[in-house]
Order: sequence, then C-alpha cells, then structure tokens
Amino acid sequence: MTYQVHGVASSGNCYKVRLALEQLNLPYAWHEVDMMHGATRTETFLKLNPNGKVPVLRIDDMTCLCESGAILCYLAEGTPLMPTDRLARAQVLQWMFFEQYSHEPNVAVARFILQFLKRADDPRLPEKTAGSYRALDVMEAHLATRTFFVGERYTVADIALYAYTHVADQANLDLSRYPAIRAWLGRVRSQPRHVEMPAVDQ
Amino acid sequence: MTYQVHGVASSGNCYKVRLALEQLNLPYAWHEVDMMHGATRTETFLKLNPNGKVPVLRIDDMTCLCESGAILCYLAEGTPLMPTDRLARAQVLQWMFFEQYSHEPNVAVARFILQFLKRADDPRLPEKTAGSYRALDVMEAHLATRTFFVGERYTVADIALYAYTHVADQANLDLSRYPAIRAWLGRVRSQPRHVEMPAVDQ
Repeated sequence: MTYQVHGVASSGNCYKVRLALEQLNLPYAWHEVDMMHGATRTETFLKLNPNGKVPVLRIDDMTCLCESGAILCYLAEGTPLMPTDRLARAQVLQWMFFEQYSHEPNVAVARFILQFLKRADDPRLPEKTAGSYRALDVMEAHLATRTFFVGERYTVADIALYAYTHVADQANLDLSRYPAIRAWLGRVRSQPRHVEMPAVDQ
Repeated sequence: MTYQVHGVASSGNCYKVRLALEQLNLPYAWHEVDMMHGATRTETFLKLNPNGKVPVLRIDDMTCLCESGAILCYLAEGTPLMPTDRLARAQVLQWMFFEQYSHEPNVAVARFILQFLKRADDPRLPEKTAGSYRALDVMEAHLATRTFFVGERYTVADIALYAYTHVADQANLDLSRYPAIRAWLGRVRSQPRHVEMPAVDQ
C-alpha cells in the first residue's frame, strides 16, 4: 500500500509527515498543493479535508487523515518513533499539543508572514515574535538536561518540534542564546534517513 | 492513588480533565488556580508547568502532565473513552488537534475576552468570531451524519470539543443554525456521570 500525501513541500506541518514517512521507510506519493493560489479551498480539496488545511494523508480511497500531529502518531504507532509506555506516550502528546498551541501559531505564522506573504511590516509580527521566544524558552529549559524531548530517545515529538524550530531564522528569530536547542537540532539532523525541508519558492 | 489537578474551574480546558476524571470515576483532588491574579506565573506553578498554563495533572510528586489533550489521552487509555483501533485512535487525535488549533483559539479566546477580560470592544473579536464559525461549520458537516465524532461512540474527542462548544453563547456565538451540533451537545450531556462546568466568577 502506498500512502498519498497532499501537502506543501516548504510547509513545516507537511514536512513533519514527509520526514516520518522517509525515516520509517514507508512508500508514499507526494501531491503538491498550490496553497498560495487557493488550492486548499477547492471543492475537490475540501472533500479530502473539510477544514481546508494541509497536510492530508490518504490511507485509501475512502480514508483521509488530517492534522499533522494525528498523522505522525498514526504512522509512528508500533515503531521506535512512538514509545510504548503509557506515561511516555502522553508526554509525546504533551509536546505535540504544545507545538500546535504555543509554538506553531507563533513561529510558523511569523515565518509564513515573512516568507510566503512577504510582509515585514505586518502588525501581528511583534506578538508572534514574543510568543515564539516564550515557546523557545520552554524548550531550552527542557532540553538543557535532556537529549530528546521524551524518554531520551528520538520520537515524533522531536519531529513535530524540529519542523519549524530549525527554520526559526526564516521567522527572524535568533537562536544564538539557545545552546541546548541548537545541540538538539544537530542530534535530530543526524538521525538515520533524515531529509531536509525544501526552501520556500521565491 | 489520587490525582492532583491544578486548574481553573470555569476554564474549558480544565473542565475537560474534570469531566473525564468524573466519568472514569477516578479519585482526584482539585486545586483551584487564581489565574486572573497571576497564579500561573509564580515560581511554584512554573515548576509544575514551565509553560505557565492550566490544567496540570500531577500523577505523583515527581510527575506532572500538561496540555489538556495529552491528559485526556492519558486518562482514557484502556477505557471506553479511547478506541483501540489504530485508525480510530488517530481520528480521535485528529479532532483533538483540530480543537486546539482551529476551535479553541477562536471560541475559547472570544469567550475569555468577553467573560474574563470583559472587553466587548476588543479588536480581536471579529476575527475570533469568524474563525469560530468556520470551526463550527466543519463540526456541523461532520456531525450531520454521525452521533459522535469518531466511530459512533463517545470518546475524548467529544469531551475535547464539548468543553467550549457548549458555552459558545458565552463567546456571543449563535448555535441556532447548527442543528447537528445542538443534537450532539444533548447526547454528550446525557452520558453517564456527566458533570456541568461551573459558571465564570462575576
């Protein structure tokens, strides 16, 4: 069985799915979605995801899974990317919900404003920048005494948080005062079958 | 073992945890946090959750779990509130991530602005209202042909989405054009051991 992924290559949320598929060596076909020209608002796309967002994982003709966090957990189940211990599994989810609530809406949205919309004077940017640094502070304190987010091993929590953190510079964020985050980024990059995220189309 | 919950009784995110604990008949002690007077920013609280947010589930003296979605999944594991099928589990997570990304930041934040901050002229409200209706539209379409969000049974996905949807009026949202959502709210309320969310202190 080959998974069908509908995504935007330079979107961090979509990159998470691709990175997991590559690292788990699962067969997939990538369908690039022209989000910037309304392709997530077409009738065809809204049948895949009525919420109009990428990524979408098509498991079969009848079954689509949405939300990057849910897709990561689905793919990781039964693999080394997801712990088996009940508490560790919940801790993985804790960091994935942290990413979607406290990190992505700041770091990813600031990056989107700057790199996709190209609006350096957007009035939302100061608040997004402040929120990004609050999230990075929480990550730095956690990683100061740990090699990965949960259980001292690489899991989908690391994939989720790596996606936008490793391109924080594209959100005009300065990681120089985050040595633990920078060391962790290096450890994530050195995992087997790591792939890079493509640059934003200019 | 008795769980210790640090939360705000009238917060939907905290209510989710209390509802699950009650419905699963698990022993817990509730520690009310005076969020509106800075209690989530104290040194003591930040030891429980460095991200400064409620709810926090203290499992033992050494172990705290944060993020309502992660806490719900932890409590529900091995109970009827969480499916065992791999796809159904991922679908539960899909709706829980949808709630935290597309629903809560609109519905809950609009309610917070109106009921806690009491700022009916807040400039963020129009965008929060529009985002709320987009999320409600997605829920309505899904529930039009279903009794619950996943697998035709009551799960933590329903608990997560019920928490702020059932007080949508407190966010000045009109549910009259959402008959499927209103019927579903009634089905959730009629589940065994259901408890209500306390009103916001005036």
